[in-house]
Amino acid sequence: MTHFPCGAVNKLAEAIRRTGSQLSVGLEPCAAYLPAGFSPDVKGYERFLRTVIDATVGIVAAYKFNLAFFEALGPPGWELLFKIRRVLPDDVLIIADAKRGDIGTTAEHYARALYDELGADSATVNPLMGRDSAEPFLAHADKLTYFLVLTSNPGAQDFLIPGGLYRSIASGVSSWNSRGNCGAVVGATRPGRVAEIRGLMPEIPFLIPGIGAQGGDLEVVAREGRGSSASSRTQARLLFHVTRGVLPLKSDAGDASAIIRAKTGEWNSRVTAALDGRGA
Amino acid sequence: MTHFPCGAVNKLAEAIRRTGSQLSVGLEPCAAYLPAGFSPDVKGYERFLRTVIDATVGIVAAYKFNLAFFEALGPPGWELLFKIRRVLPDDVLIIADAKRGDIGTTAEHYARALYDELGADSATVNPLMGRDSAEPFLAHADKLTYFLVLTSNPGAQDFLIPGGLYRSIASGVSSWNSRGNCGAVVGATRPGRVAEIRGLMPEIPFLIPGIGAQGGDLEVVAREGRGSSASSRTQARLLFHVTRGVLPLKSDAGDASAIIRAKTGEWNSRVTAALDGRGA
Repeated sequence: MTHFPCGAVNKLAEAIRRTGSQLSVGLEPCAAYLPAGFSPDVKGYERFLRTVIDATVGIVAAYKFNLAFFEALGPPGWELLFKIRRVLPDDVLIIADAKRGDIGTTAEHYARALYDELGADSATVNPLMGRDSAEPFLAHADKLTYFLVLTSNPGAQDFLIPGGLYRSIASGVSSWNSRGNCGAVVGATRPGRVAEIRGLMPEIPFLIPGIGAQGGDLEVVAREGRGSSASSRTQARLLFHVTRGVLPLKSDAGDASAIIRAKTGEWNSRVTAALDGRGA
Repeated sequence: MTHFPCGAVNKLAEAIRRTGSQLSVGLEPCAAYLPAGFSPDVKGYERFLRTVIDATVGIVAAYKFNLAFFEALGPPGWELLFKIRRVLPDDVLIIADAKRGDIGTTAEHYARALYDELGADSATVNPLMGRDSAEPFLAHADKLTYFLVLTSNPGAQDFLIPGGLYRSIASGVSSWNSRGNCGAVVGATRPGRVAEIRGLMPEIPFLIPGIGAQGGDLEVVAREGRGSSASSRTQARLLFHVTRGVLPLKSDAGDASAIIRAKTGEWNSRVTAALDGRGA
């Protein structure tokens, strides 16, 4: 097996090999996402998150905490975050989607919170403040830090796209990758942009949100994100994230766990088909 | 007295009028900042933060929580944050320096965490993802949201300065200010830049970090940040932040509280002198 310098990248590559899945599933205690029968309180959210994990363990490569939903619950939410972290298996990538970004000792403390205290393998970081804001995360050599490069929301037109800022960020992050522990958050937008970013950072792992409810074009982003190499040693380069897409709709009858497992299987098939260029 | 549409801006203007201070003081439970005699644990940090508050209450206009330092303590840190929030007086601006930035329902939950749960009057936000990432914060019409516009760290040269991204952000934020509840984080950098930003957002409150330990040029930033108007109705437009600058050095003997109060008084004098164009 190929060995990557960064432990978290190795863990992701191994989880993908073992499960055959290039999917990350979201852990988001949000009232709007709760299936029928779960109460919108800390107890209900805990049961919901445990159900998601039980239903998907062994068939996904990663879990991603969205910290906003935990923080909105106040101090009990931060407790819940740590509690759920402790029930996650050790052989998947655990991502803290926190989009932190600050400088100096502040950035060091954010990295410590996510990597040392919470024990995440990976975190999302906002690169706006530049290299010295990234370095305290990258100093955790065995962790995989995904930097925001391009997002698929309308507001990407405000700053990221004009003047090609996302290209500057892609080049910048690529130059920060001496330890092999940089990743990139790349939203599925119009055709061509993901290929362009892949061209600027050929070996860097992409975390691709928005393939479920947000309706990104999976086929296009899979083809462009894969780039010229499709060998197994580079599989850590593509991780597709879905949250709402694997959850029961309010109208879905039946066992939440079985529905989540079935929908996750469908998403795995869709991603595999897209990566093979076959459609789903 | 002038009435601003945003309650938090009113509160800041009134606190400045009442105290004569345009200073924000940092609440940062960091081991490196602890005076002699305080233990680097949650109990010691609580005593430290209470000491800072007791020593400065009535002589500063704002307090700023740096969330990184609380998060690095794990769940007890988030508890401490809320506990300290409850002991802060109601008549000062309470800023949650969190630099969050995300989209849609995630951004809504970050805003809810800081504004509804924690009860901050103000928060710092990273504008990289654009207007739809800002809107969930701005929908809290009575809160003052400070957006990162320009920072003084070396990494500002990576993305914020090339191509004048900070100018685009200043113009963008200015266009988001229909409710009068936008602010800007503006670092003291080389002469000319703060004036340029003030020109793009004439009435927007600036939060100016880095005047203490980071050694920004207080005179220059005061003159340029004040802009053409220096009337009392616009005093909320300048808030200078200091953390380490008011804390005892490890070598300082004597009562921590008395030292903090004396240093805060000195910073108040320096800021006032700089705003009057007199030097300190």
